[in-house]
Amino acid sequence: MSRDAANVVVLAGGFGGARMAHGFELLGEQVELSVIVNTGDDLELHGLMVSPDLDTVMYTLAGLANDATGWGVRDETWSAAEMLARYGAPTWFGLGDRDLATHILRTAAVRSGARPTEVAATLASALGVRAKLLPMADSPIRTKVRTAEGWLDFQDYFVRRAHADAVLELRFDGVEAATITPEMAQAIESADLVVIAPSNPFVSVGPIVAVPGVRDALNATQAPVVAISPIVGGRAVRGPAADMLTSLAHLPGTAAGLAIYYSDANPGLIDVLVLDNSDAAHEEAVVRTGMQALITNTLIGAADARRRLAEELLGLALH
Amino acid sequence: MSRDAANVVVLAGGFGGARMAHGFELLGEQVELSVIVNTGDDLELHGLMVSPDLDTVMYTLAGLANDATGWGVRDETWSAAEMLARYGAPTWFGLGDRDLATHILRTAAVRSGARPTEVAATLASALGVRAKLLPMADSPIRTKVRTAEGWLDFQDYFVRRAHADAVLELRFDGVEAATITPEMAQAIESADLVVIAPSNPFVSVGPIVAVPGVRDALNATQAPVVAISPIVGGRAVRGPAADMLTSLAHLPGTAAGLAIYYSDANPGLIDVLVLDNSDAAHEEAVVRTGMQALITNTLIGAADARRRLAEELLGLALH
Repeated sequence: MSRDAANVVVLAGGFGGARMAHGFELLGEQVELSVIVNTGDDLELHGLMVSPDLDTVMYTLAGLANDATGWGVRDETWSAAEMLARYGAPTWFGLGDRDLATHILRTAAVRSGARPTEVAATLASALGVRAKLLPMADSPIRTKVRTAEGWLDFQDYFVRRAHADAVLELRFDGVEAATITPEMAQAIESADLVVIAPSNPFVSVGPIVAVPGVRDALNATQAPVVAISPIVGGRAVRGPAADMLTSLAHLPGTAAGLAIYYSDANPGLIDVLVLDNSDAAHEEAVVRTGMQALITNTLIGAADARRRLAEELLGLALH
Repeated sequence: MSRDAANVVVLAGGFGGARMAHGFELLGEQVELSVIVNTGDDLELHGLMVSPDLDTVMYTLAGLANDATGWGVRDETWSAAEMLARYGAPTWFGLGDRDLATHILRTAAVRSGARPTEVAATLASALGVRAKLLPMADSPIRTKVRTAEGWLDFQDYFVRRAHADAVLELRFDGVEAATITPEMAQAIESADLVVIAPSNPFVSVGPIVAVPGVRDALNATQAPVVAISPIVGGRAVRGPAADMLTSLAHLPGTAAGLAIYYSDANPGLIDVLVLDNSDAAHEEAVVRTGMQALITNTLIGAADARRRLAEELLGLALH
């Protein structure tokens, strides 16, 4: 570790979380990066433990991500899925062949008694990832989504039904029994900067903050806590964040709505809310919640943009 | 089932067993085929239950086999294996992407409490196989091989070390605790013909006959028991059968050596030993053991040849 490196903690879901974390990874030795990743989206498929958000972050940081889809591995093949279909097994959740290797090794390691945190570290390190990838808990937590159809498993709602249903209620099964891991506590305690990635506040950031011990750790840190809005120009960059602001929080699906939601749900926790230039008009609404507003370019599809945003945020870190 | 169909039971390893069983499958409704398959070669890789012989038989009967290699699935891809290598996982045992689907589903089903016999039936049936594929036991049996290097796992000897070591001793771990399955007992009891495929007598046929209850069932059946020599022209069509005749039984690695081994190891069990035309000179040695000799073309690489041999053997069935 460079003596001058800043300790950065990113709280991340899959898509926006991976891109934001990647920006910091690209800063190299300026940053000691820990990424705390939502595992509420995890599922078991054909007996394999699948951690979609963790894998999206890992593949992205390893430079292996499929940027076209935003999930999975580049240059993927689908032979196993074809064969699974031939056997009549469900294939609505895409498991590519390269991706399967990850699930197979994770499952074997966890079944052999390893902690998910250890397994994530081993896998990421084998792929050349410098950052610490920290699952948000070592015990299973499963996000459930209530819709007009009743309670659904998260991926049933999100992938199989293409998040078309209005979400009326959420719960995080297993969260009360979970606890902040020693690695997460240590990362937050020694953080110079905490970044809440432009991930879904309800189903990506929400489960992480709900893990017992996380909110207290975030409140205790001296480091600035900076959240990036996943809502840009009045819509989510991807996924149902804007719809959920309305259906779950009865707020407008805008950056202003997000500011109100974040400050209501986490009083005093977030110091700075980062809005995209296209949402500059919502700055006033952010300031009214007591958070500072930072207006910049938050569209981080390209690696250059990710790195640039990370660099700008790094300027907010404790020195 | 056609009223006139003959009940044929084939005892099979992977390579020769799959080809012989395929000949009977190709006879269609003339035959109700049950294939009792060696599982002593099974192994666990990355937490997945792999049954190489069972899968070779299944893929061959389903018309999906890779005839060039004699194992695995046709048109296979290797993306998962590449990724496993990237993770530093051992890849000396080739797991193709399509093949992985089989191991994944088998493992999930067995872990959920299904009997391996049920799982084999479900998988084979999904691939359109008519025959009953019967693993030789529902409990694990593991063939171990003693060489100058000490005791090795079977696939360590066979695949990783390319069966280059002389085999000094065999044992079948778990065989005493195993028992003939109801499906195997029923198949043998109602057999009109029992065929011991041209598989390795020591490590393919040997483990099956060693399962408690199998030898008694074979001795009790009225059906002719016909074995096909895997030794042709003084060498094994594939694999270490000829070498093992010498190193394990101190016999010549010839059809005559095989006749002596089979009759010594299984007194009175085999009625007819089938030799290839190229081994016609060994007919006398067979007859001297008390078995009948049948001399024909036993090279069954091509589907036509498989079917022809099956048809000829079917002429020996009870009527």
